[in-house]
Formats: sequence, C-alpha cells, structure tokens
Amino acid sequence: MPEVAAPIARLINELAKLPGIGLKTAQRLAFHMLKAPAPEAEALAMAIREVRDKLTTCKECCNITDTDLCRFCSDPGRDRTTVCVVENPTNVLSIERTREYHGLYHVLHGSISPLAGRGPESLTLEVLTARVRAGGVREVIVATNPNVEGETTATYLAQILRPLGVRVTRPAMGLPMGADLEYTDEVTIAKALDGRHEV
Amino acid sequence: MPEVAAPIARLINELAKLPGIGLKTAQRLAFHMLKAPAPEAEALAMAIREVRDKLTTCKECCNITDTDLCRFCSDPGRDRTTVCVVENPTNVLSIERTREYHGLYHVLHGSISPLAGRGPESLTLEVLTARVRAGGVREVIVATNPNVEGETTATYLAQILRPLGVRVTRPAMGLPMGADLEYTDEVTIAKALDGRHEV
Repeated sequence: MPEVAAPIARLINELAKLPGIGLKTAQRLAFHMLKAPAPEAEALAMAIREVRDKLTTCKECCNITDTDLCRFCSDPGRDRTTVCVVENPTNVLSIERTREYHGLYHVLHGSISPLAGRGPESLTLEVLTARVRAGGVREVIVATNPNVEGETTATYLAQILRPLGVRVTRPAMGLPMGADLEYTDEVTIAKALDGRHEV
Repeated sequence: MPEVAAPIARLINELAKLPGIGLKTAQRLAFHMLKAPAPEAEALAMAIREVRDKLTTCKECCNITDTDLCRFCSDPGRDRTTVCVVENPTNVLSIERTREYHGLYHVLHGSISPLAGRGPESLTLEVLTARVRAGGVREVIVATNPNVEGETTATYLAQILRPLGVRVTRPAMGLPMGADLEYTDEVTIAKALDGRHEV
C-alpha cells in the first residue's frame, strides 16, 4: 500500500488480520484511530497490551483470568461437586447467561479433531483429571459442541473420567427454542423424539 | 399493469400472491409460462386444479390425502399404539425424514394462539379425542413447534388427553445437531443442561 504513509499502512495491515475485518473496514478503523483524540488511541493500545500481559489461565479450571484463581473457582457460593467442561472461554459466558448453572467450569481450550491433527494432548486434560482425582467432584457435564469434534471429545472424556468414579453427563440434544419442525434437520428431530418426556 | 395484455397481467398478479414470490419473480414466471410448450403449461394448470379437487383430509388423522385413509393410517406396518401430533402436513414429512418414527400421526392444521385469535376450536381436536377414546392408543407425542403457540397447544392437549388414560409426551428441547454454544440462546442451553444424560 504505497499510497499511504508506512505507519498507517502497517496499522491497516495489522487490523485486516483480525477475523471479520476486511481491508476496507481496516482502512476506516485506521483512519478513525489517526483522527481520534490521543488518549483514546493510547487507551486502545494499552488495552491490547494488557490483555496479553495481564491475563493468564486459572490454575484450577484453565479459564482465562487476571487473578490466580478465576472468579468462579474463587467464589465460595458455587457448587464444587459439579464441573462443566467447555471448549472455549466464550462457552463459559454462554452457559452463565442461562443463570441456571451454579457449578464450576473446566476450559479445554479446543477439541479433539483427528482431521485437523488435534489430539487429546492439545487439551488441558491433565489439570482436569488431577482435579477429579483430588476428590469432591461428583458430576462432570461435558458441554462440548454437538458436532463431530465435540462428540469425539465427549466420548474420549467419558472414557478417561468414568474410571475415576464420577458421573459423566452430556447436555440434551433436541429442538432449540423457537425452532420450526419444517426447518429442522432430521438428526435433531430424531434425537428430540428419542429424548421425549412426559408433559 | 396496463403495459401488458390483460391475461398476462392477471397471471402475474396471481403468481405474485404466492408466498416468497415478488412482482419481478412473478413476471419472469409468467413470461416463462407464456413461452413454454403448451403441454407444460397445461400440465401445471391441471396440477393446480387437481390439488384442490382431489385432495381431502384423512378421516383418521386429518393429514392431507387423495384416498379415504392416508398412507400412514392405511399401512398395517405402522405402530398403532403411538400417535404423533403435529401442527401441519409438512411436519409429517419432517418427522418421516428421520426414518426413526414408525407410529401414526394426527395433523392439527394449526396451533392455539390467543394473540391471533385462534382458539382450540380451530383445530382438529374432536377427531383426535374420538380416536384416543376408541382405545388402542397408548402414547400421544405432542410434536408441536417449540415456540409460544406450540407450547400452549401442547399444554392444552395434555390437559384434555391425560384424563383419557394415555401417556402424553413432548420431544426433547436441547442443542440442535451441529450447534455452537457460542451462538445458542440461553433458554435452549438451560433446557439442554436440564435434560442432560449419562454419556
């Protein structure tokens, strides 16, 4: 991009690497940052550095945190007998939004995908098994995504966790809220019929 | 539309009344029919007439059929102890695609919606209760859609059917196949956690 000064070209280039940000958006953002008041631009730059420098993973559950233990693991009000295993930190937010889960979490930071060459060793499994072995956990809910990688991961987890004497469960598959049978795939409908319950 | 001959304007007008067909699409379809070989146009016209003239509803289950009993009710291979209640004939197709349901159906031709002024009397409930009273039915699966109208309808159905001595069930709500927790609403996640099962 020789038609702009090198620093702005560099910023555009870096912004365009972000997911969902194309070249045009990157240009608009870059020129906005150029014209924005200095403190605003400085605050953004600092926030970006801090997110890398200050955040770490929780020693207990591998969730991202800026303290030694994350806010769930250090909360005495949470039910410590139940651990919900999720693929990513964003999934923790999804489950918290339900306001109906009061146990702890474990973040795998990925899923098993033989096709993509990601085996169990790429996940934070040792921390999880150590925690289950330490005792106190009665149920592990494997809330990995209901797709091929997530199901594979759940099966693998059940195999290594069940011998440790905990209940291993999986959230129900079925019709999502507001769905229409007409536009729902047959696997989901079959699972929903399979898991039917009394009204 | 004075710039085209009256018959074509009439055809465009009628086509544009169809769901999802705007004026432009209607024009394209109309001019295609004008240029198409005569037998093709004639076959379409006849098919439209026939669909109205020859189709009726099944005496047993209210599904659309061109015979006295529909193909499910007249099939001796289907399990006659289970009846799956759906809102519309297209829902029957959705459930058949799973290839895992082998019982019979009942088509309500709608759902209860107090807001839209549709009460229970707008549905084919008398045919259903008469069938359950006649005996032989052990379970009624209420597979109305998982939205407000469908849930209302399911609750109403359970109230009138349970006193007749049948099991009234509802398909599971949960995560649909291939879902991502990150993009799933909290009600669905809560229902999925609620209905969790051992791996």
